[in-house]
Amino acid sequence: MTGNGRKLAERAQLAMMLEVTAFPKPGNVDRCHDYETTRLEHFLASSILVREAFEHTEEGTGTVGENILEAVRLTGAHAGGNTHFGAFILLVPLIRGGDIPGAERVVRETTVNDAILFYQAFSETNVRILPEDDLDVHDPGAIAELRKREMTLYDVMLYSARNDMVAREWINGFQLTRKGADLLKRHGCGTDSIVSTFIDLLSSEPDTFVIKKHGREVAGEVMRKAREVREGQRDISLFDQECIDAGINPGSIADIIIASIYTALGEGWAWDC
Amino acid sequence: MTGNGRKLAERAQLAMMLEVTAFPKPGNVDRCHDYETTRLEHFLASSILVREAFEHTEEGTGTVGENILEAVRLTGAHAGGNTHFGAFILLVPLIRGGDIPGAERVVRETTVNDAILFYQAFSETNVRILPEDDLDVHDPGAIAELRKREMTLYDVMLYSARNDMVAREWINGFQLTRKGADLLKRHGCGTDSIVSTFIDLLSSEPDTFVIKKHGREVAGEVMRKAREVREGQRDISLFDQECIDAGINPGSIADIIIASIYTALGEGWAWDC
Repeated sequence: MTGNGRKLAERAQLAMMLEVTAFPKPGNVDRCHDYETTRLEHFLASSILVREAFEHTEEGTGTVGENILEAVRLTGAHAGGNTHFGAFILLVPLIRGGDIPGAERVVRETTVNDAILFYQAFSETNVRILPEDDLDVHDPGAIAELRKREMTLYDVMLYSARNDMVAREWINGFQLTRKGADLLKRHGCGTDSIVSTFIDLLSSEPDTFVIKKHGREVAGEVMRKAREVREGQRDISLFDQECIDAGINPGSIADIIIASIYTALGEGWAWDC
Repeated sequence: MTGNGRKLAERAQLAMMLEVTAFPKPGNVDRCHDYETTRLEHFLASSILVREAFEHTEEGTGTVGENILEAVRLTGAHAGGNTHFGAFILLVPLIRGGDIPGAERVVRETTVNDAILFYQAFSETNVRILPEDDLDVHDPGAIAELRKREMTLYDVMLYSARNDMVAREWINGFQLTRKGADLLKRHGCGTDSIVSTFIDLLSSEPDTFVIKKHGREVAGEVMRKAREVREGQRDISLFDQECIDAGINPGSIADIIIASIYTALGEGWAWDC
């Protein structure tokens, strides 16, 4: 099957499209569920509008920080707000490095200037961060602080890794991205495997986006229920509806799944069978 | 709203994405309905994979025939078969010309070589044509015949216009494309207007793809039922299911709607409100 995209940029776009259309994904926007202000079309428009940022990433034009900022800006044009900030944090090094080992090298080479550009990108989104964070991106002093501490973008991720599973990927060699890609291949070709992989990760990893929004207890509850879905003891559609009603959207796991799909597509996993 | 795409190529990609996700569209693949061999993801993958062909079209690289052939080839990589052949016939001149008046000039300037490339593109798809067609694209003699008759691509469309409403757009100044764009704007911003416009065209124009597949009587029946939907006398979801069950997919009107969305986006209609 040659529908996996000829370029890395295309492969990343397909990963974004395949993740959001996979159904049902408890709590997240999917083929059959929207949130009031963020709908399926917003995610799909982003997967089209991001193209040039990914092309620049692939051809090595601009730095990692510039590429993330460009991706955020190109996809921030519609009213759906930020749709893929976490995904860009993973996809940009993966595209630039080609694969996970390449991405590991790329993230270690980031600079203080990348960190500043990243903070700029962050401040242009409305992504939730912890109130106790002393490097609040909405604080104009944060950039001065970055310079003072000489923090590279890798250092920022190291700093955020405690509370953010996407940042943690930069530090631990893209462990969950790797795990997700292996799960996709184990579940076999086709888009249903994306749902199975999502449930697998949801049942084994507390989603840090859910923790930030609802606390550890709720995140633990989500894991427990996902395990029940996996073991056939809970209906996935009812669980989905329950999450949506409570505003519980495991967005960080969704971001990681996008990186996993990108990786699996590069290793021959076929979405189309 | 600036989410309409900065480039004409992007605008055309967004039009493809918005058309296929609009729901419910009686008989066609939409957000909630697949056909067995052609699914939502195939249409969405095509809207990503076509990018370079549209960029070449926009920058004037290659001829109209080459651009259509490239679009067919880039999107033929997945297992969903041809998804957008009719749409490419409309979008390529619209992108190259910018808008409808520009497209009218573009189509008149096509050459015999464009016709030959178009036949080559056609033969690489599995698009249904009339059995009595004496310019059968699967007949190796057809290209010799095109040369002998000195038929340009415009002439081919003129020849096909009798039986094909997409070809007819080339001849009549993109009348239904224009009508669809005006309807979209009249129905107001947002993706629900795409469904309303689809029903409007379905109730006033016999879909030539349905005629080729099921005959004039069935096409007339579809129009009558669409009128009932429009007048609130028939449930759109039941009509949708009825069409799907009978394999009635009004694909030519869907192709024209894509061209209408492209046009309306260029005139300020917003999908995102």
